[in-house]
Amino acid sequence: MQRSPLAPAKFPTLPPVAGVQLASYAAGLRYTKRADLMLAAVPEGTAVAGTLTTSLCPSAAVDWCKELLPGGTGRAIVCNAGNANAFTGKAGDTAARATAAAIADALEVEAAEVFLASTGVIGETLPEAALVAALPKLAEGLQPSNSDQWEAAAGAITTTDTYAKGSSASVAGTDAVVVGIAKGSGMIAPDMATMLAFVFTDLEVGPAQLQEATTRAVENSFNRITVDSDTSTSDTVLTFATGASGASAIGNEAVFQEALNAVMLDLAHQIVRDGEGATKFVEVSVHGADEDYAAKTIALAIANSPLVKTALAAEDANWGRIVMAVGKAGQAANRDRLAIWIGDELVAEHGVQADSYSEARATEHLQGDNVRITVDVGVAEGSATVWTCDLTHGYIDINAGYRS
Amino acid sequence: MQRSPLAPAKFPTLPPVAGVQLASYAAGLRYTKRADLMLAAVPEGTAVAGTLTTSLCPSAAVDWCKELLPGGTGRAIVCNAGNANAFTGKAGDTAARATAAAIADALEVEAAEVFLASTGVIGETLPEAALVAALPKLAEGLQPSNSDQWEAAAGAITTTDTYAKGSSASVAGTDAVVVGIAKGSGMIAPDMATMLAFVFTDLEVGPAQLQEATTRAVENSFNRITVDSDTSTSDTVLTFATGASGASAIGNEAVFQEALNAVMLDLAHQIVRDGEGATKFVEVSVHGADEDYAAKTIALAIANSPLVKTALAAEDANWGRIVMAVGKAGQAANRDRLAIWIGDELVAEHGVQADSYSEARATEHLQGDNVRITVDVGVAEGSATVWTCDLTHGYIDINAGYRS
Repeated sequence: MQRSPLAPAKFPTLPPVAGVQLASYAAGLRYTKRADLMLAAVPEGTAVAGTLTTSLCPSAAVDWCKELLPGGTGRAIVCNAGNANAFTGKAGDTAARATAAAIADALEVEAAEVFLASTGVIGETLPEAALVAALPKLAEGLQPSNSDQWEAAAGAITTTDTYAKGSSASVAGTDAVVVGIAKGSGMIAPDMATMLAFVFTDLEVGPAQLQEATTRAVENSFNRITVDSDTSTSDTVLTFATGASGASAIGNEAVFQEALNAVMLDLAHQIVRDGEGATKFVEVSVHGADEDYAAKTIALAIANSPLVKTALAAEDANWGRIVMAVGKAGQAANRDRLAIWIGDELVAEHGVQADSYSEARATEHLQGDNVRITVDVGVAEGSATVWTCDLTHGYIDINAGYRS
Repeated sequence: MQRSPLAPAKFPTLPPVAGVQLASYAAGLRYTKRADLMLAAVPEGTAVAGTLTTSLCPSAAVDWCKELLPGGTGRAIVCNAGNANAFTGKAGDTAARATAAAIADALEVEAAEVFLASTGVIGETLPEAALVAALPKLAEGLQPSNSDQWEAAAGAITTTDTYAKGSSASVAGTDAVVVGIAKGSGMIAPDMATMLAFVFTDLEVGPAQLQEATTRAVENSFNRITVDSDTSTSDTVLTFATGASGASAIGNEAVFQEALNAVMLDLAHQIVRDGEGATKFVEVSVHGADEDYAAKTIALAIANSPLVKTALAAEDANWGRIVMAVGKAGQAANRDRLAIWIGDELVAEHGVQADSYSEARATEHLQGDNVRITVDVGVAEGSATVWTCDLTHGYIDINAGYRS
């Protein structure tokens, strides 16, 4: 697969997270000539938090994580790429339990401390025997989390991604860091379902606080991106706090939240930039809505509209389609006070095209890789920003052509 | 524009509706070499009912119809194609009122008896002077509603449609008929927004009963089709009952509803068959849901999923994407009782692939023009059927290329 034109120049240099060990391994379960298993091991007492897909047909791994998360601690996360282990019935549950048990054996921890994620084809039985046989070899490869290990781990969880995704931030005023890896190239990739993100910090954070900070960071990052409006059976974000830096989140709540937000937002943007067929990174901001939630609903209606997304692909300043999307969002909007900007160009205000509007200037903005659409719906103070990409022939090629 | 491969062989032969006169006229407002204005005139006492777009940014014509509909009667409907007169502020309202006034003058009726519809580019000012100058010439052309007149009227309201759409049904046991024309080639066509349908009967029907019958027929036809999930600023369905056949709906409620349902469902299917870039007509049926509304929500989630629609375009029996769409619909589904059929082929049951499943047989079904997907979500008795088309390169071509 050709690297996305919106990809960063290279994988970032990521710092180690004290206490985190990483391994990846090529088990050949679906892919050949690449790692398809990833393991991260963390010390006793590590707090774990997370958010899971809202799909009502979740994968076996998501079901497993749902059972474990209330415990608030864990020792490992293991992820396989190539098979989602979703809609696989009892065999899927059994395979998930066997995976956790095998890693628990290798690490001498409890199976109930081993988190799971699976990404890939839905409905195919996971080759349990081959997977379980590979897991001890995966565990043998554990090494401290240096930058090469992060890059290998990020690569091992990819499916249709065109590049591996990682990000880091320091927790200001402490020695602690936050490092995350993610995969995804669509809110759901074709067959290869799933957006996954695993984020680690060596700050000491209690489980309840970690969950709260995670929920808040996810809401402002992964829950604000959309490629094709589809939701995976397997979406999973897990956060691990080892405490091994010696620094604590107590008294550092704000700086920790800031670092976590920064890592998750960067990873979320990297997923959009790898959107299937994407040629434009698009930021949609809505202001003046009834409340923030209403603004987000309107912003997502614009970001998910196939008509808006195809116009962006064509670099066509077709702002009537933005009006259409605002109108269908079902949230209050005052047509006679509606204002629209493309980049910095005021396109429409007071319910009509602006006198000063220059389609040439709007088009010039649309010709760049990074596009901004701003809408003021003229009702109250609610606002929200979401991110998406354009809809191109590349999306059809990838999704109509993939399985064959 | 090339005629859709799913188009009917030719425009149907439609009967006259007693009392209905039709005219069309080439005003050259946007299109050349074709009619772009349509007028239907009906006798005094004609009942009118309708349903209008739920968009919160509706066109001036929709606003106008909203004012008139509670009156329950009318004398005419005039429609222009090429300009939606939406997001055009006060100038748009003025142009709408001027249109109604000019037709009222020509027909010697009240402006408040003239219904309006506009379809085309959003945000461009309607050329009011040219339009108003053309309206008397349009009205001069009125003729009884024979089949040629229906075809001309159906053609005059099209925009990106690749064929004109019409349908008729007899009201069993009476001399009355129901005839409708419609336009649309997407829930919203590109710039050329809008799904419009105008339906006429010479049965005598009171306004309240007509509204009830119209609402019911729309819910089971136009509200069950989707091409790209986008909603127009201008969607309008209007029903006119002239009573000129001498037969009355009283005592004929069921047969009238049946005829109205048949005409609207046929028109709705014709719109889907003209879906932008469509190569497959797709019926999605959901059974076993909590209630009918839940079944419709799940069916639309499947029908609107870009991943399902691209798989259908590729004739790929990628049923994992159907599971994904069921999962994201947010309505109760029992994963361990879920069953899926492609055509008559049982694909999955009890939460796993069926033992008898043959991908070759499923693929054979998908290679036809008419595709059926059936899902039983295993919860209760709710059911619903919706219709859509596949998502192809043609959709991108039309929507990313149109305005230029």
